[in-house]
Amino acid sequence: MGAALQQRVSPSWEVIQATDADWPGIWEIFHDVVQGGDTYSYAADTTEEEAKNLWMGAGKYGTGCQTFIAKDGDKIVGTYSLRRNHYGHGAHVANAGYMVHKDYRGQGIARAMCAHSLAEAKRQGCISMQFNYVVSTNSRAVELWQAMGFTIIGVSPKSYRHSRLGFVDIYIMHRFLDEVAQ
Amino acid sequence: MGAALQQRVSPSWEVIQATDADWPGIWEIFHDVVQGGDTYSYAADTTEEEAKNLWMGAGKYGTGCQTFIAKDGDKIVGTYSLRRNHYGHGAHVANAGYMVHKDYRGQGIARAMCAHSLAEAKRQGCISMQFNYVVSTNSRAVELWQAMGFTIIGVSPKSYRHSRLGFVDIYIMHRFLDEVAQ
Repeated sequence: MGAALQQRVSPSWEVIQATDADWPGIWEIFHDVVQGGDTYSYAADTTEEEAKNLWMGAGKYGTGCQTFIAKDGDKIVGTYSLRRNHYGHGAHVANAGYMVHKDYRGQGIARAMCAHSLAEAKRQGCISMQFNYVVSTNSRAVELWQAMGFTIIGVSPKSYRHSRLGFVDIYIMHRFLDEVAQ
Repeated sequence: MGAALQQRVSPSWEVIQATDADWPGIWEIFHDVVQGGDTYSYAADTTEEEAKNLWMGAGKYGTGCQTFIAKDGDKIVGTYSLRRNHYGHGAHVANAGYMVHKDYRGQGIARAMCAHSLAEAKRQGCISMQFNYVVSTNSRAVELWQAMGFTIIGVSPKSYRHSRLGFVDIYIMHRFLDEVAQ
């Protein structure tokens, strides 16, 4: 697959491929994000071992997660996990999840990681990226993905048990990668 | 979770929970079905070990597959695998895959297994069933699922690499379980 992209996305932070040594900083973010129960399906009590497997391990289809981090100096301020969305006949579609450290939100880190992931997926030969599980009430994420070229291709009714709002809809979002610059 | 449903669905065959001893008959079906490259994402060269893990193992979210078979006497004529469609906050949505032995198609076995799975999912507390990956050109399946109360809630463009037709669309199909009889 060649070397992963390594690009500086702002004057102060960069997106690079994670190594095993980065796990503690990633886990800090993962564990905090899932406490909300409003963005990811992962339960609040997901263990560190489970989380590592989900984010850096074999991935749900055994095709492997590739994990990236946004770093500001030595601080891991965001992370994303890039996978194939399906097995063999669906492996040309990418999938990714993104998490930003709570102290670093609103700085464009999610946007930069998404741009990085689109380029990386294209470099690896994927023709599109699909998000299977965007919580419809997470309007900040929905709007960001739309700004990044994704459209809502499906609505799964009441498929998310939100920690405060009860059952809410899930959006399935998709974009092709033809126009992604590399 | 209590004992799984065990119901006779036609005069000559029944749907029951599979045991490890049923694997050879299930594998015969699985291996044949994936050779087509026109219905499932699993590659034609999926190994027996991989297949067993996918169909009877931990499942893609580690929440476990529950495997059922349709039996005509001692012959396994169909099989389905019932799972949760997501982790914690999405675990109230069921997911299933169905396969029928090539010599036993057109006899209503898929329909009976689907009905069985809907009742079983409801019994286990799921509120809906979602199919994430129905190949749009598999009109027989699409029509059957529609007849079984599913609607197309999303279209994922060109997300299946069909062995003969190239990139074709994937349908995401869904139904609630409120009206399923138990």
